[in-house]
Amino acid sequence: MPRDANTTAFNVILFDGFESLDVFGPVEVIGQVSDIYRLGFYSLHGGIVTSAQDARVDTYPMTDADPDGVLLVPGGPGTRLLIDDATFINQLLGLAKQASFVLTVCTGAALLARTGLLDDHRATTNKLAFDWVASTRPQVDWIRQARWVRDDIIYTSSGVSAGIDMVLGFIASQYGTATAQQAAYHMEYVWNTNPYQDPFALT
Amino acid sequence: MPRDANTTAFNVILFDGFESLDVFGPVEVIGQVSDIYRLGFYSLHGGIVTSAQDARVDTYPMTDADPDGVLLVPGGPGTRLLIDDATFINQLLGLAKQASFVLTVCTGAALLARTGLLDDHRATTNKLAFDWVASTRPQVDWIRQARWVRDDIIYTSSGVSAGIDMVLGFIASQYGTATAQQAAYHMEYVWNTNPYQDPFALT
Repeated sequence: MPRDANTTAFNVILFDGFESLDVFGPVEVIGQVSDIYRLGFYSLHGGIVTSAQDARVDTYPMTDADPDGVLLVPGGPGTRLLIDDATFINQLLGLAKQASFVLTVCTGAALLARTGLLDDHRATTNKLAFDWVASTRPQVDWIRQARWVRDDIIYTSSGVSAGIDMVLGFIASQYGTATAQQAAYHMEYVWNTNPYQDPFALT
Repeated sequence: MPRDANTTAFNVILFDGFESLDVFGPVEVIGQVSDIYRLGFYSLHGGIVTSAQDARVDTYPMTDADPDGVLLVPGGPGTRLLIDDATFINQLLGLAKQASFVLTVCTGAALLARTGLLDDHRATTNKLAFDWVASTRPQVDWIRQARWVRDDIIYTSSGVSAGIDMVLGFIASQYGTATAQQAAYHMEYVWNTNPYQDPFALT
């Protein structure tokens, strides 16, 4: 598919200890609509970052990202340290404030929450890490049972694989269900279409 | 989880134009059993390779891979050129002949088929690219309707997302269903457990 200046930036934020599928599930979906979006991978200082599964991915500095794009923030064990990195959180705040949409997967919600932008908004996160994430920012309206949650321009998903369902839901909202279904079909992915059906919620 | 010399190498073969989720779905599963496997990413010459979704991943040369490990061969648009790269196919043959198990996702089956090691074996592949893959090696017993196929030490899966189901099936066969179910649970992944149920088969 053509990639030209008419596409919108889809900015993926990476960091050491990011969860591989949090990133590359959504990235696979966005790759199905590459006539709409161009993917870019960014980290605080740029260069190689290493996923929790030992994949080394090359990135550009976050200051190079087009701030008017869509922002994707994954989770992973690296978030436990990163929420206390004021430089990173400030950069993330800058990008998130200007982004057309902000999407988080798994414990990526803890990073966005730390910016304050989730305060008084509905959001969800990884179910096995739910209590930790919620404790980092009680000002957020954390939803315990949801595959993903949309609150205005912010989408947050449950753990890991839920990011795929959420980004398909995002595509459906923006470009119609048929476009999302076609993306899922090309990925041979059985899309869990209902954001309220959450088999992994701990009640 | 501990990573020591007692782990088995899980060698992932990358190339320009590999499909992101073909790789990082299975990698996420294997990361859940990192007490058993250590992940390594390899390409023909090593260095940066770029996925079909523009992710740049750093690799080691294939000659550095522990040949006694498990081998994962993803698909993607890059396979269309790579099946005619004799140097690559010969290196792949060398690793695949010695591997304890060989797993392919999507059109990665075309690469393994080109080595000849799939001849007279049952295998499947991406459903939208099925006829192309089958045409590249008619000596293989290509199965049109299957989420994944196991034939002795060779596992082949349908397109993209099917790789996750297959690798969970591989884990189940090797270490029991409970171990696979626990991996899926940590990934918040709704595992399609039945290899014969294939909603994407074109009949």
